[in-house]
Amino acid sequence: MNQTDTIIALATPSGAGAIAVIRLSGKDAIAISSKLFKSIHNKELKEQDTHSIHLGHIIDGNRTIDEVLVSLFKNPQSYTGEDVVEISCHGSVYIQQEILQLFLRNGCRMAQAGEFTLRAFLSGKLDLSQAEAVADLISSDNEASHQIAMQQMRGGFSSEIAKLREELLNFASLIELELDFAEEDVEFADRSQFKELVVRITFVLKRLVDSFAVGNVIKNGIPVAIVGEPNVGKSTLLNALLNEERAIVSEIAGTTRDTIEDEISIGGIGFRFIDTAGIRDTEDVVESIGIKKTFEKIEQAQVVIYLFDSEKFKAQSSKFKVELEKIKNKYPLKPLLVIANKIDKVDDIQIAKMQTEIPEIQLLSAKTGYGVEKLTNTLLYLISTGALRNNETIITNTRHYDALIKALEEIQKVKYGLDTGISGDLLAIDIREALYQFGLITGSVTNDELLGNIFANFCIGK
Amino acid sequence: MNQTDTIIALATPSGAGAIAVIRLSGKDAIAISSKLFKSIHNKELKEQDTHSIHLGHIIDGNRTIDEVLVSLFKNPQSYTGEDVVEISCHGSVYIQQEILQLFLRNGCRMAQAGEFTLRAFLSGKLDLSQAEAVADLISSDNEASHQIAMQQMRGGFSSEIAKLREELLNFASLIELELDFAEEDVEFADRSQFKELVVRITFVLKRLVDSFAVGNVIKNGIPVAIVGEPNVGKSTLLNALLNEERAIVSEIAGTTRDTIEDEISIGGIGFRFIDTAGIRDTEDVVESIGIKKTFEKIEQAQVVIYLFDSEKFKAQSSKFKVELEKIKNKYPLKPLLVIANKIDKVDDIQIAKMQTEIPEIQLLSAKTGYGVEKLTNTLLYLISTGALRNNETIITNTRHYDALIKALEEIQKVKYGLDTGISGDLLAIDIREALYQFGLITGSVTNDELLGNIFANFCIGK
Repeated sequence: MNQTDTIIALATPSGAGAIAVIRLSGKDAIAISSKLFKSIHNKELKEQDTHSIHLGHIIDGNRTIDEVLVSLFKNPQSYTGEDVVEISCHGSVYIQQEILQLFLRNGCRMAQAGEFTLRAFLSGKLDLSQAEAVADLISSDNEASHQIAMQQMRGGFSSEIAKLREELLNFASLIELELDFAEEDVEFADRSQFKELVVRITFVLKRLVDSFAVGNVIKNGIPVAIVGEPNVGKSTLLNALLNEERAIVSEIAGTTRDTIEDEISIGGIGFRFIDTAGIRDTEDVVESIGIKKTFEKIEQAQVVIYLFDSEKFKAQSSKFKVELEKIKNKYPLKPLLVIANKIDKVDDIQIAKMQTEIPEIQLLSAKTGYGVEKLTNTLLYLISTGALRNNETIITNTRHYDALIKALEEIQKVKYGLDTGISGDLLAIDIREALYQFGLITGSVTNDELLGNIFANFCIGK
Repeated sequence: MNQTDTIIALATPSGAGAIAVIRLSGKDAIAISSKLFKSIHNKELKEQDTHSIHLGHIIDGNRTIDEVLVSLFKNPQSYTGEDVVEISCHGSVYIQQEILQLFLRNGCRMAQAGEFTLRAFLSGKLDLSQAEAVADLISSDNEASHQIAMQQMRGGFSSEIAKLREELLNFASLIELELDFAEEDVEFADRSQFKELVVRITFVLKRLVDSFAVGNVIKNGIPVAIVGEPNVGKSTLLNALLNEERAIVSEIAGTTRDTIEDEISIGGIGFRFIDTAGIRDTEDVVESIGIKKTFEKIEQAQVVIYLFDSEKFKAQSSKFKVELEKIKNKYPLKPLLVIANKIDKVDDIQIAKMQTEIPEIQLLSAKTGYGVEKLTNTLLYLISTGALRNNETIITNTRHYDALIKALEEIQKVKYGLDTGISGDLLAIDIREALYQFGLITGSVTNDELLGNIFANFCIGK
């Protein structure tokens, strides 16, 4: 990627809307725009203030393409740190394309995915973890993932890492200074203070590494498998939870052969409800593939909901209990909620009988909505969201997780070295390695391949 | 619709993108935004210049929703003529919704479809035909429809109407003045000058009314029916014309049972190619419904392409000729292009034979692309685009067409009245009626129902 080119891309979603925004960045952004934009007040773009807006027309020779608003952001006061021009045009796909083509013919090139944010990183506007948070922010679809991305974008996580890195760097310098005076046997670095720092770093790193488990499910949604007989009302429950009709609901047993996933935000946390084919015995080949999939889905789920039909309890209670045992034996540590659905269709005696035979049962009517709120509360209770509530830094990025794990390993080597009193030169090597891993997170250490991998996951225009 | 409310809507297409723009308009737009937006430089929004941009955060209590850019447009220097604030936020659907909900809780209400443009009209920023052109511009998808909408939005059409209306209004005033002096038998309005004006108005109105036929097809795309045997290569031709794989192409005769329409811009004009089921005799019920549809599509088309397979000409030439006669007899005035496809599969002798038997034949190979360019040129030639080339005003709006037709009728009554020397008071009534029709176009005469109908067709956010 040539960083001196002036790049252009559509910044708003594709498709027709009232308006669309086309964004340019680079050293010729203003010059190219001046040539193709005529202000209604005949103002020269380059003489205008940064952060100012101008009404006028995009002109191709003597053909007017659109009436637009042009926003001017002058280097370094822009997202990328370069000169940036944003063109707010009418939202027709035809107009968007005409304007893009016109600017491409006049010296711009199409931006690659994430290239605006890459430039922001390269010009020091954002560190690497902040840049990554921009992509997370755009893809956030519930309060928790949004909050984590927002905190990371505002630098919460990287400033914590950067602070530890700086302290560690100080000690590294002192220890390396000692090496220069090796023959004099001095100690510039106070070993007990250094040990104290290493303990503190270990603590922080462990907490961050542990937060990844929470962060990961929050980012991707917490998987909940709904298991039960065909026709037990899984789809109806899903719909009650979703408050809309996304899953197919019908009266024919075995309708849901493919697993359907749907995400719903409960208390700001994204839950992915996975509707499975159930686990009844069957001769049907397609159905039995579905059952195999059901167990795979239970495997992957954080929580399992076992749903049965209250009307069928009398006749099939032993079968239900066998299936429940099967799940409990196979996944003893997985939270399992047992739910009696369709309780609007049975009497109080029947309900009492179910509660006796399966004490952990929760009563529900997906149809009337009875018990749905209790179910959502239970789900929230099962998910450990303490870290989230306490506004602690949570890691959601696999790359950060890997670097933190490696940094932790190196720090533990340093600690071992301190405890056993190894020589300063060996200590320095382990410290350097830990510093390198910290640097990878914030981007103070980087390389082209790493940057390529990170920004390729962005959308074009960001 | 209460015009004093502050309205808000998403202005960019829904869905995820790099950024999204949320637009507010109304007397409290700046006050509400000041409350929910904290500039990073602690600037007070209401003290800032119009057309200025500010970086900061949207804040809900102590929760930060997003880092945004806020653009300020102060009354009357805005699209609506009111105070307008545009919030450029990260393009996550979650963030868009959070910001919208926050502003709704703080005194905004959701804008109705077209309400921003309605306010622009009511505050005199646009006349009615210009406002209508905004919607046309957004939905334009080829050069011709874009050019017409652009011209109309810039006031080309309404200034022509407004000028005629003013001249007519002058004469109306003079004639009504005569009525005040009825007993003195004076003539303030020069009858021969007035006749000259009426002839000129008639000429302009007739031209505008005639342009509607061209305008309408340009706006909606020119329908071209492709008719022929199953498996003759209609879908392949469509693909060659479209340069992409939208229609299903397969080797099984009768694949295309439902009519497929696809629009392609040729020389800046939108053509809607309608792939039909062909007209062969068949026992298949589904197929015969398709054939009935084929004739309906020919009925609606501006141009018909009859396509046959060169390889089958030897065996079926008489059948092809019968089908061609059928189409010609049923639609004698409709332009019909006869095309021999798959000429890459036959020899020169066969080609000569086809040309002898059907002289008007065009040779084509949809597969190799031979003859496709000649076909597109023929299509362009068949469409009268003289008015378009000469940059004349073209009517595309049914409402304008109706008003122009009525204005023309009234003007012809005025002309008849002048020719037969009817009394001034009767003449004045006809002139008033013509003026009323002119006024309906530009919106100088209007009512709530008319406005409701027009703006309901807009998208939300415009």
